[in-house]
Amino acid sequence: MSQYHCPDAQTVQKLRDIANKLRIHSIQATDASKSGHPTSCCSAAEIMSVLFFNTMRYTIEEPKHPNNDRFVLSKGHAAPILYAAWAEAGLFPESELLKLRKIDSDLEGHPTPRLNFVDVATGSLGQGLSCAAGMAYTGKYFDKADYRVFCLIGDGESAEGSIWEAMAFASHYKLDNLVAIFDVNRLGQSEPTSLQHELEVYRARAEAFGWNALIVDGHSVEELTKTFWAATQVQGKPTCIVAKTFKGQGVPGIADEENWHGKPLGAKSEAAIKAIQENIINKGPHGVSPAPISKTLSPIKMSVQLASPPAYKLGENVATRLAYGTGLVKIGKSNDRVVAMDGDTKNSTFAQKFKIVRQSKNDQVTVVASCVTLFEAMKAADSLAASGVNIRIIDPFTIKPIDAATIIASAQETGGKIITVEDHYAEGGIGSAVSCAVSEQRNIIVKRLYVPEIPRSGPSGELLEKYGISASCIVKAVQSILSA
Amino acid sequence: MSQYHCPDAQTVQKLRDIANKLRIHSIQATDASKSGHPTSCCSAAEIMSVLFFNTMRYTIEEPKHPNNDRFVLSKGHAAPILYAAWAEAGLFPESELLKLRKIDSDLEGHPTPRLNFVDVATGSLGQGLSCAAGMAYTGKYFDKADYRVFCLIGDGESAEGSIWEAMAFASHYKLDNLVAIFDVNRLGQSEPTSLQHELEVYRARAEAFGWNALIVDGHSVEELTKTFWAATQVQGKPTCIVAKTFKGQGVPGIADEENWHGKPLGAKSEAAIKAIQENIINKGPHGVSPAPISKTLSPIKMSVQLASPPAYKLGENVATRLAYGTGLVKIGKSNDRVVAMDGDTKNSTFAQKFKIVRQSKNDQVTVVASCVTLFEAMKAADSLAASGVNIRIIDPFTIKPIDAATIIASAQETGGKIITVEDHYAEGGIGSAVSCAVSEQRNIIVKRLYVPEIPRSGPSGELLEKYGISASCIVKAVQSILSA
Repeated sequence: MSQYHCPDAQTVQKLRDIANKLRIHSIQATDASKSGHPTSCCSAAEIMSVLFFNTMRYTIEEPKHPNNDRFVLSKGHAAPILYAAWAEAGLFPESELLKLRKIDSDLEGHPTPRLNFVDVATGSLGQGLSCAAGMAYTGKYFDKADYRVFCLIGDGESAEGSIWEAMAFASHYKLDNLVAIFDVNRLGQSEPTSLQHELEVYRARAEAFGWNALIVDGHSVEELTKTFWAATQVQGKPTCIVAKTFKGQGVPGIADEENWHGKPLGAKSEAAIKAIQENIINKGPHGVSPAPISKTLSPIKMSVQLASPPAYKLGENVATRLAYGTGLVKIGKSNDRVVAMDGDTKNSTFAQKFKIVRQSKNDQVTVVASCVTLFEAMKAADSLAASGVNIRIIDPFTIKPIDAATIIASAQETGGKIITVEDHYAEGGIGSAVSCAVSEQRNIIVKRLYVPEIPRSGPSGELLEKYGISASCIVKAVQSILSA
Repeated sequence: MSQYHCPDAQTVQKLRDIANKLRIHSIQATDASKSGHPTSCCSAAEIMSVLFFNTMRYTIEEPKHPNNDRFVLSKGHAAPILYAAWAEAGLFPESELLKLRKIDSDLEGHPTPRLNFVDVATGSLGQGLSCAAGMAYTGKYFDKADYRVFCLIGDGESAEGSIWEAMAFASHYKLDNLVAIFDVNRLGQSEPTSLQHELEVYRARAEAFGWNALIVDGHSVEELTKTFWAATQVQGKPTCIVAKTFKGQGVPGIADEENWHGKPLGAKSEAAIKAIQENIINKGPHGVSPAPISKTLSPIKMSVQLASPPAYKLGENVATRLAYGTGLVKIGKSNDRVVAMDGDTKNSTFAQKFKIVRQSKNDQVTVVASCVTLFEAMKAADSLAASGVNIRIIDPFTIKPIDAATIIASAQETGGKIITVEDHYAEGGIGSAVSCAVSEQRNIIVKRLYVPEIPRSGPSGELLEKYGISASCIVKAVQSILSA
């Protein structure tokens, strides 16, 4: 077990100074954009300073180097302080920070992977830890690398169940390379959080969910450096750092006060920045570099290519699923980081070429259907053919994107008449997609068959009949549209 | 503090016998429907027997009597045992149970409020506790009644974050009238759950979330009666009963075995029922009645009516929001159970009569828009009018239902030309609803303006322009559709 070495007094002061500089950047950037969350940034200033300038190992030159430690800002509305940290680290000029939320800047209101230092888009609160846990799982079990994953979570969002589902996942898989930091600044958007500063409750919950949990003064650089080090010493479980902080910390009259969520400081900025500056001993540059990434790792192979080129003959018929599997094997041979997720696709492997499932030279209606309704449409087609009416059947395969050209062409060949059939509500399905696809065409009409009400239990055949989407219902719809 | 009185030996045996009868009913019903979850029912048999025939206070004759204790079956796929309990209690004949999942029976695969003894539709797992907590909140704070709310949760679904969000809510509001029972039968759908029979972990989590938590042998009638009594003695916090059970309990060769989720026993039923019957001492009727509901409560007033009739003059113009508030006050005066939920509707209070926002006698295009795009459309209309082109503007107010008649009539008066404008993705919005509304009409075309890609940060005006939904874009779209 390694020993903790406290940073020297000079380094501690530098980390404090950087934290305060990050505060000032956040205030200035949100003032420039006239929107944003400076107080949510201020509560996390020391956490960000210590993480980015003492704890995390990464190369500034290559923010997405595979060996870098990862950072996920689950409380994505604190984006300005994330941007400030990277600017302070030297990735881009500080002047860029004032372009926050401008239409020509990628420094948006919430972080997105458009930025070369962001892996996960955050801002839909409660989701960051799930992503971070997946990244930590990848690090531990697929990459078998020593990079660590840090996730900063707001106390407000920690009330969301999704956080606790991710907590259970992370301990079940013993993700000791994962550190979650709860920024417990006590205040939510419109009022105090349910737990306010009940730090022991946070600790008990994290422990009950199988985590190593540590309470820390989130504005103490010394406590933070020591706690992040302690997290590296724990094996077999992730670490949760419960940081007691104050929203707007460092800004007199605003810190720990309500009604300052999501508001630039505006007229109060000048005094705020002056007060913060008084706490800065050295304005920098501080010459603090992030800890280096591991040198002992063999580089992670990022190239993904076919081990051998495709070897199909022109015109050869190959089932999509088989070709998919063959391709996967060839890719997997070239890189053991290729993981195939089985999306249970066994019912949807019609190849593109089967999109028009049935056609003749004198089709009178185009029917668009899929899965169970596709089979009903085929039965309807047999029945109609017996009485001399031919219909064309299209399996849309996907509805986003939808093959509008095929549908329009088919409709034009079948008297401008389309019937859609789907085994669920009308909204957002085949009928809607087809109606939109032909919306700019005159002389094409779409009759939609769908489940019009809350369905119920029963045998499949009876249900199809009850809700008007069976073969016999399709036959009636065809007869109706032809006689209209 | 009251004293616990253990049921006498005869009552205990009756509760055991009833549990086994519920098992047999569940096996027979799922055999008859050839689908369903008998093993998930069997793990809960003693819990259901004790709840329905010893713990809960309710009137069989009036399953939704306002003073009754409530029961929510969060693990809705165990519906057959819920139906069996009510049949056994005498609400309807046991023979009805064999109609499970038939199209003409309300005994569906999962419980729905179509049934007179079900408050909440369940089966989408992880949701029952949220509903139960809301009901308990109502009981404690609005009704100020002494009814209790019981919620039976599967261990598989307890991994869902939504359960823990509800747990946090329930303890925050001190819902001591709420009892959650975790049916920890160890097996999920396709494999053992993450926690299997780690009952202490469940207890620790429930305690950390502020609950009184008790571990119990879920197949011991004596332990269950005592534990449910103990829950009544706890003030200021809800109680979580962690019940150790076995999936398929009572069925030799199937109990605690994998691969029996959601499968009727079929050929194995006869032997299973025989084995269960051997444990039944008395086949009943047992003459066990539920505990009576409180007599001390004054009846809860369920009528909701206006304290005085509407007093508007014909033709009088009244803002919708004002009329809404006036109506609410009148309703609230008649019944203190009327609760107004503020849905933050300040931006959507256009009255129905303002649906057609702008029109003239020679409109050439119908534009459908709402909120910010409605204002852009108004600007576009001014600009177009200056060059002699009039457009009609419709605010759809809602898209479900959508006023198809108004839209079709308007389109017919404007050359069959419609433009829709919305400030989000195409799917599921105004353009889609309008396209569907006119899909059976020949000679009506719909041009849709919407945000076609992942949007980004920026000032509102620049964003409207960038994504093609500003006033100037609407002007161009009008010119384009007129020249086509």
